[in-house]
Amino acid sequence: MKVNLFASVENVNEESLKGSSVVVIDVLRATSVITTAIHNGCREIQPVLKVEEALSLKNQEVLLGGERKGLKLEGFDLSNSPLEYTMERVNGKTIVFTTTNGTRAILKSKYADRILIGSMLNAKYLAQKLVEFGDDVSILCAGTAGKFSMDDFICAGKIIYEMSKMTDLDKDDFSSLAYLSYVNYKDNIFEYLSHAKHYNYLLSIGLNEDIEYCFTEDIIDAIPCFINGRIVKL
Amino acid sequence: MKVNLFASVENVNEESLKGSSVVVIDVLRATSVITTAIHNGCREIQPVLKVEEALSLKNQEVLLGGERKGLKLEGFDLSNSPLEYTMERVNGKTIVFTTTNGTRAILKSKYADRILIGSMLNAKYLAQKLVEFGDDVSILCAGTAGKFSMDDFICAGKIIYEMSKMTDLDKDDFSSLAYLSYVNYKDNIFEYLSHAKHYNYLLSIGLNEDIEYCFTEDIIDAIPCFINGRIVKL
Repeated sequence: MKVNLFASVENVNEESLKGSSVVVIDVLRATSVITTAIHNGCREIQPVLKVEEALSLKNQEVLLGGERKGLKLEGFDLSNSPLEYTMERVNGKTIVFTTTNGTRAILKSKYADRILIGSMLNAKYLAQKLVEFGDDVSILCAGTAGKFSMDDFICAGKIIYEMSKMTDLDKDDFSSLAYLSYVNYKDNIFEYLSHAKHYNYLLSIGLNEDIEYCFTEDIIDAIPCFINGRIVKL
Repeated sequence: MKVNLFASVENVNEESLKGSSVVVIDVLRATSVITTAIHNGCREIQPVLKVEEALSLKNQEVLLGGERKGLKLEGFDLSNSPLEYTMERVNGKTIVFTTTNGTRAILKSKYADRILIGSMLNAKYLAQKLVEFGDDVSILCAGTAGKFSMDDFICAGKIIYEMSKMTDLDKDDFSSLAYLSYVNYKDNIFEYLSHAKHYNYLLSIGLNEDIEYCFTEDIIDAIPCFINGRIVKL
């Protein structure tokens, strides 16, 4: 079972994703939001690239969620904080969602056979399902502003680590490095994150609680899946 | 002082290298060969992309060196083994040189203000010079067949580690990860390398001695520099 890792959206050859299961990771915070919302009963999430597009879709039936520069958008119902996506707020709802990095990564994966959303929250459960499916896996780290982001990378490492406990993997060098990064820091992830620019930016705007939540491991047994332009529960 | 790391040639926006010192790394083995040859008195090295181009430049005055798939080329004087580039063989000579990954990376750096060749052999000395120059640094890992390669990455980490002992660095996330990889494995680099595909390929074709040499640290105080199409001693 092959595992390839793409370190940021810019590096992805879309055609190369054909025939594989793709996992999209934007752990701080888009894919942690999506995992939480789907787990809390959200009916579907529609990712869109532009704020204007989201606003044009606003009506009584949908909630608008997302961010620019980590901050809530005017006219939106929800920010990009996973802590806002409670069952009370999102159960049964449709959410139109736009973020800087994660949304682009999801939409970039369109040629894949299966597009799944990963986070620390559902990493072990996701790894189990990937092994059950048995297809080659491509992990796509969203990155930050087109650049590699250490936070996504260690989440990829966690998923690869969990898979490697269940089956033999043929890892490319990025996957091996992510695996080693997780193995070396799994008992001290915040030491690793202290070197990460995006983590430090989010800390600087006061998002400590969000970060702590996003790095809580294996508390959700649900996988959001992107099909026909919508994210639904697998 | 900013340090940006590009994890493989495919990821480089050539224009973004303007105004910085670029370090090109293809540690197994092209930039280890070049470092060794320049240290051993080679007058200049002309990197070319194609085997035919190298052969067309063959004459009494030059040596042809390089590889494809790690192996010596027909009609060439030297392979891609740094151990062949002895003082007896290369002192005072011009070498025309072609390899799969390293040559491309060097030629891709053309917009940089200064293009330097890095390896484990000259890492500490190179770090000293980079700090003396004081320009922002872009480190370009050649990779293998267009993909990220762990061997180049830990060499980048070593250079960043040595720089960080001399000055404050503003590292991008790739640079921080390379730094941490070197810090975590500097006393056990072959454990790290055992996960690297290109390393294992070179082992499989019997290049153990080359690898051991290429990972010998800080034995050369010389920096090859690419200027006007030629590599000469800085």
